[in-house]
Amino acid sequence: MASSLISRHFALSLQKNLWLSAPGCRHVSKAAPQAQELTKQLGEIQNVGAINFFCNYEESRGNYLVDVDGNRMLDIYTQISSIPIGYNHPALLKLLSNPNNLSTLVNRPALGILPPENFPDKLTESLLSMSPSGMTRVQTMACGSCSNENAFKAMFIWYRNKERGHNTPSEEDLSSCMVNQAPGCPELSILSFMGAFHGRTMGCLATTHSKAIHKLDVPSFDWPIAPFPRLQYPLEEFSRENAQEEARCLEEVEDLIVKWRQKGKPVAGIVIEPIQAEGGDNHASPDFFKSLRNIARKHGCAFHVDEVQTGGGATGKMWAHEHWGMDDPADIVSFSKKLLTGGYYHRDELQADKPYRIFNTWMGDPSKNLILAEVLNVIRRENLLEEVTRSGKALLNGLYDLQAQYPGMLSRARGQGTFCAIDICDDATRNSILLKARDKGILLGGCGDRSIRFRPALVFKEYHVHIFLNIFNDVLAQHK
Amino acid sequence: MASSLISRHFALSLQKNLWLSAPGCRHVSKAAPQAQELTKQLGEIQNVGAINFFCNYEESRGNYLVDVDGNRMLDIYTQISSIPIGYNHPALLKLLSNPNNLSTLVNRPALGILPPENFPDKLTESLLSMSPSGMTRVQTMACGSCSNENAFKAMFIWYRNKERGHNTPSEEDLSSCMVNQAPGCPELSILSFMGAFHGRTMGCLATTHSKAIHKLDVPSFDWPIAPFPRLQYPLEEFSRENAQEEARCLEEVEDLIVKWRQKGKPVAGIVIEPIQAEGGDNHASPDFFKSLRNIARKHGCAFHVDEVQTGGGATGKMWAHEHWGMDDPADIVSFSKKLLTGGYYHRDELQADKPYRIFNTWMGDPSKNLILAEVLNVIRRENLLEEVTRSGKALLNGLYDLQAQYPGMLSRARGQGTFCAIDICDDATRNSILLKARDKGILLGGCGDRSIRFRPALVFKEYHVHIFLNIFNDVLAQHK
Repeated sequence: MASSLISRHFALSLQKNLWLSAPGCRHVSKAAPQAQELTKQLGEIQNVGAINFFCNYEESRGNYLVDVDGNRMLDIYTQISSIPIGYNHPALLKLLSNPNNLSTLVNRPALGILPPENFPDKLTESLLSMSPSGMTRVQTMACGSCSNENAFKAMFIWYRNKERGHNTPSEEDLSSCMVNQAPGCPELSILSFMGAFHGRTMGCLATTHSKAIHKLDVPSFDWPIAPFPRLQYPLEEFSRENAQEEARCLEEVEDLIVKWRQKGKPVAGIVIEPIQAEGGDNHASPDFFKSLRNIARKHGCAFHVDEVQTGGGATGKMWAHEHWGMDDPADIVSFSKKLLTGGYYHRDELQADKPYRIFNTWMGDPSKNLILAEVLNVIRRENLLEEVTRSGKALLNGLYDLQAQYPGMLSRARGQGTFCAIDICDDATRNSILLKARDKGILLGGCGDRSIRFRPALVFKEYHVHIFLNIFNDVLAQHK
Repeated sequence: MASSLISRHFALSLQKNLWLSAPGCRHVSKAAPQAQELTKQLGEIQNVGAINFFCNYEESRGNYLVDVDGNRMLDIYTQISSIPIGYNHPALLKLLSNPNNLSTLVNRPALGILPPENFPDKLTESLLSMSPSGMTRVQTMACGSCSNENAFKAMFIWYRNKERGHNTPSEEDLSSCMVNQAPGCPELSILSFMGAFHGRTMGCLATTHSKAIHKLDVPSFDWPIAPFPRLQYPLEEFSRENAQEEARCLEEVEDLIVKWRQKGKPVAGIVIEPIQAEGGDNHASPDFFKSLRNIARKHGCAFHVDEVQTGGGATGKMWAHEHWGMDDPADIVSFSKKLLTGGYYHRDELQADKPYRIFNTWMGDPSKNLILAEVLNVIRRENLLEEVTRSGKALLNGLYDLQAQYPGMLSRARGQGTFCAIDICDDATRNSILLKARDKGILLGGCGDRSIRFRPALVFKEYHVHIFLNIFNDVLAQHK
């Protein structure tokens, strides 16, 4: 089985020395004496191998991140895509200076048992004001991994109640689950895709297949893994080939669902990103997702769309799945990063039937909901989704131009909104370009084996695109 | 196997209608029209079955929590033991009113790649100023479950590198892990204890065995589960019997380690709470933990002490394991709740050998470190650990007295510092007492099958103990 799943892009990552290839670039500028001292100091406390540099967040503004040595960089990576409206936005500074909000910052409640009185209102004005189609229910969580873990649990609970035909567990269910055994802890599975990234806790990690470094040495579950379509770009020029590739993957999905049912490990849910991000910015068509949704329905599996990286506006819509144009796009949609709080929306029937099944001490953090509500105000007031669409077009067109100019070095420019990426000829060149761009004041991140991903904040305007393209052109010219 | 593990206290939880027994009490006061309206409103968004009531955190002060209808309660549960120095402490209000701290609240970094310049200093003045003996390294995380998940991963990575004899994975390791298969995703296990609670994400959940409601319907791992000693209280009156019981459990631990090694699922680590909290406030002696530490060392397993609930001062020491009097108490100590940020300390050799192996987007939250540093200042300035020791003695003595007065209703009073508990004759009476106490202005929580746990903040003074004891006496007298 293993060998059949080793697809082209993944086989690459097995090459010697490549298994460590990292999502960001690592570089401590030589002209950074303070940074070196801090790295040494932090190195006594933690592994610092992934540290890019130390930041002066006080001095950072909008799209510009300032490092500890005073260097100012146009940030097109935004803390792994998690800063929605740039650094130190005046609206947020004002919000958190308001003494009326102090109590929310100081008293973190156990939301599942003792919520603050304004909790329903805060949810309504923040998360529920942007609910995915067909969903009026939301559960907050502290981070992306916890969001997906709990979304998986919700799917397992829903699936088992469906299998039972009622929600009253047997004595055997109750006793066996206490010792990790079936039927109480059933042999159910989640179907995921090669190249996917859904987080790093053990449930999530069993559905993550982007890089070996994330998974090595951690026990896992024998769950089915389908190929994610490897499309050719620009998508509109290869529609026939891409449709064939998507059909191949969909067929494999159905085969795996049947095979795992026969194995006695039925697929309770399918989890997928609208655009595989960490795994290399891999896109698929709306038709692919529609068909996948139908396959899930046909086989009685829940359909979970992981929008942890794609959600929050970077594709030009609040949710990437809105581009599919469906009334009923998913059973569960999880989020985190730009939404500042983790969590997931779900259709009514995916709500756990009893309290304490989906539960933990904090269940999110009202101080993050507070900030999110103001972020959404800013997004609406400043028409940031339109800005993203405009900047995204300029960015992608610029990437097409560069790709035409440097055909040996660049390929596969792709994107939706500002959620763009481009491939570099090889991993070493990619990493070298990331460092050179850094030295010229542009902060970028990598993804996949040899891609660069663009993840600016929503306040990234057309003129920032042009600043970036000019500098990037210089960097590429030096590499030519 | 399953049947041999069904111990007395766990068998209880299998009784009909008991499997739902909850960690807190659920009660919406009848004199609470606002609360009913809010519950209805939130019920449209989430499962509200666990909601006790809605709170007015602005009006809450110190040990007193105020609900939305203006009722003021002495809080001896503190948001499931997660409020360290009471509500709206003036020092924290002042800290978060300081404009110099605004940037930390507004700009949440990806700590693993772009930490703020003051990050090493903040760690040093907060978490590292209270490091467990033998540990100078700490990794922050967003919550308790993420902390334990990553601690488990650190143990697996450490164990596999030890097995290999070096830290260079084979091609087979790298390719097999991408598809969830051995040897890359090895069949390693974590040994846990019946009655334990280590969290609810899928890795943690495989080591949680306190109540069926937490585990039902979620796939799990076939990992060994040892009995936790069921001691008789007061401990000093039953030292011989308790020593025998502990010896029995230790023997079982060694048997399980051998058995799981033979099964091909070696035990990479042992995880244990210094006092089992959610599972019913079960204590064990320092000798038990010393022996367990030695067994772990003898068999080459890492030893992970989960101080998520016990850490932060409630036992009269910053860490409950300090009561064991050991120089080298553990390889890993995890924390969350009262520490406001999740995370874990570890011995040097438990640090992952490469970056991105223990990693996620946020890796904690500097705004929580900021608050924690001030909480620690308050604890030191106000000698709160001494206060806890003093209040704890008064509380436990008061419980002993009540137990003598109501022998048919109360038993097994036990505790360390204010981290106390008492058993009630049965589950229904326990829950009724929790509600009656609530109506008289005392907020308590349950744990185990029929225990009440006391989890006041560190600012709970002797006079609060007497307020509580008086009211509790009234409640018990009514039940007699």
